[in-house]
Amino acid sequence: MSLSPPLGPSAARAEAGHEILVRVGDALQREGLDVLVATSPENLVYASGAAPPSQRTVRSRLAAAVIAADGPTETIVVMLERPLVLTQTWLDRVTAYVEFEQHPIDAIATSLRDRGLADGRIGIETAHLSHDDVEHLRAALPDAELRSTDTLWSRLRMIKTPSEIAAIRAIGAAAERITAECVQLVGEGSTERELGDLITDRYLAAGGDALTMLVVAAGERSAHLNGPPTDRVLQRGDVVRTDVIGTANAYYSDVARTAIVGDPDQAQQRVYDVLSAAHDACLSMLRPGVLGTDVYRVYHDAMVAAGLPAYHFVGHGLGVTLHEEPFISPRSTIALEAGMVLCIEPLTSIEGQFGMQVEDEILITENGCEPLTRAGALLRIGVA
Amino acid sequence: MSLSPPLGPSAARAEAGHEILVRVGDALQREGLDVLVATSPENLVYASGAAPPSQRTVRSRLAAAVIAADGPTETIVVMLERPLVLTQTWLDRVTAYVEFEQHPIDAIATSLRDRGLADGRIGIETAHLSHDDVEHLRAALPDAELRSTDTLWSRLRMIKTPSEIAAIRAIGAAAERITAECVQLVGEGSTERELGDLITDRYLAAGGDALTMLVVAAGERSAHLNGPPTDRVLQRGDVVRTDVIGTANAYYSDVARTAIVGDPDQAQQRVYDVLSAAHDACLSMLRPGVLGTDVYRVYHDAMVAAGLPAYHFVGHGLGVTLHEEPFISPRSTIALEAGMVLCIEPLTSIEGQFGMQVEDEILITENGCEPLTRAGALLRIGVA
Repeated sequence: MSLSPPLGPSAARAEAGHEILVRVGDALQREGLDVLVATSPENLVYASGAAPPSQRTVRSRLAAAVIAADGPTETIVVMLERPLVLTQTWLDRVTAYVEFEQHPIDAIATSLRDRGLADGRIGIETAHLSHDDVEHLRAALPDAELRSTDTLWSRLRMIKTPSEIAAIRAIGAAAERITAECVQLVGEGSTERELGDLITDRYLAAGGDALTMLVVAAGERSAHLNGPPTDRVLQRGDVVRTDVIGTANAYYSDVARTAIVGDPDQAQQRVYDVLSAAHDACLSMLRPGVLGTDVYRVYHDAMVAAGLPAYHFVGHGLGVTLHEEPFISPRSTIALEAGMVLCIEPLTSIEGQFGMQVEDEILITENGCEPLTRAGALLRIGVA
Repeated sequence: MSLSPPLGPSAARAEAGHEILVRVGDALQREGLDVLVATSPENLVYASGAAPPSQRTVRSRLAAAVIAADGPTETIVVMLERPLVLTQTWLDRVTAYVEFEQHPIDAIATSLRDRGLADGRIGIETAHLSHDDVEHLRAALPDAELRSTDTLWSRLRMIKTPSEIAAIRAIGAAAERITAECVQLVGEGSTERELGDLITDRYLAAGGDALTMLVVAAGERSAHLNGPPTDRVLQRGDVVRTDVIGTANAYYSDVARTAIVGDPDQAQQRVYDVLSAAHDACLSMLRPGVLGTDVYRVYHDAMVAAGLPAYHFVGHGLGVTLHEEPFISPRSTIALEAGMVLCIEPLTSIEGQFGMQVEDEILITENGCEPLTRAGALLRIGVA
């Protein structure tokens, strides 16, 4: 165990962390747990601010946030990421394990044992931790009561703190602006990849960490959902669908737009108008107390009435993950609450022809909602 | 279940897939298994060619490759990724499940049951599948014998096929060239981020899928291992460490270089010379039959002799993951074999001062090794 020197995150980040830790502490007490151990990248960064870059790329470098009812909060991380994590995390201490010498689960078990929690009620993420890791932890702490807390974390993360809303607002607005700018910079004869590279450049320049799943899909490719940019050339009459999915300071942007190279034909304009009207109708419903299933039905019925394929959901929460509760689907039984940030993204895909989508990020407020981004008319890409 | 239309990958990819499937089939027989179910992104793309973009970003969208001793090979994927996966995979069929309606584990269980394997010997990845998913599969197939096959996959992937070597060679050479070019384009007063953006542009233009973990770290930040580029300004005398970690066609590049802004001082030049000599010494040892632990000792002893901190490993396999067997560490008991591709990456970090690293990708051949990239002298960044 090693105690952190008085380095640490900025005052703003420390405040952001404080807002979250208060909520986590309440949840601990409410659930009658002695300690929460967050291990998924999303719950780790949410609870601790730590985002060790190699945790996703080298899966065995498991990292954890340990937040107990009593005692110091702690980030556990592979040694080589310790210097960086010291600058990121707002937790009290950073403990490091050496790769190949100590298994990360043993580092977690040691921390829990040192806290007197060898027989405690320990909340873990059984939907994230591998089967082998849970068996390992059970063997290391045979007297502990291990409880699944995946739902606890997802419920906590649904309602954003003021700092979280500010982070989502900033990168969402950037994603929207960048898309509008970059479609002006390409034309007939450009490739999807050229448009994608322009978007990537500006996203990084705007402070983005990375684009985790950029979509630039032209013509018949626009019907494929998560199509990364390729060398396909933009041709007159192509539908071009973009979706700027990335993160800044760990928070996601997810803003989709539809453009046409040149002028839309009648069928294209009609599909866009149907989507756009469905989008407006969904947005007009958003307020605390509304069920996602009711919002989904408005979208679904609009597609069916227009003879267009409906997608299996029309929205989702957004935060330190791309897709989180509440989902806006036929099965959404969670009532909306102020402080949720949703993506509302009506889309329709006509296989072999084209797909169109408009997607905005929407904050649920006490009395209704506030769009953080807002799609307008079909975007236009110039022709020679 | 839905059968794929006669779409599919290119002839070259189909041939690449065939090379791998022959090896997977041999492993199935050797281990006495009825079927292998690959679920980690790395084993999925290795065995099937499929890389559904959202599997990493939306973890619940589990995808699988099902390869049985008898019957069709199959990729199981969330419905919305089916069109893209049809263009990627070389397996016989693509089966899709609808998100929120069917759990991916149930889709896997249905496939196994339909194959008459409800009581079969089923190889799964228990170090990848979550605890909840394994319990779910056990409940769905109570008479099956579930066996861990994580080691089987990692052993298979150690020895690369000719197509895999070609893929790694191409993007590795690009990463090396791009680094050398881009350090020429920045100077004193540029930022880490500007250098990072240049590298990113060219990496994507060279056919890279994405940079998953680019390192650009200047001055005292160069001592941090996985430091993403920041707004830190390059100053005369700074050590600048780069590591171009990304993928093209799912195969990784991992090439690190060290540069100096202006002229190195004596201490800096000495550290680089020590690293460079250790690198040469390690490379001269690489041939079939050598143990990683012996290669590691050469690096370790060279650092100790020079009074410099040694890192806890000096190399690793490279392929569809960034770090894979064989590791070149104090505990490496795997003998090198022809067809392995290793990264050899001596580094030393003097906390608070600087870190230096040289890293090349090396193919093990029948009689020795072939460097796919090769670091030379300290790179130089211009001063005003």
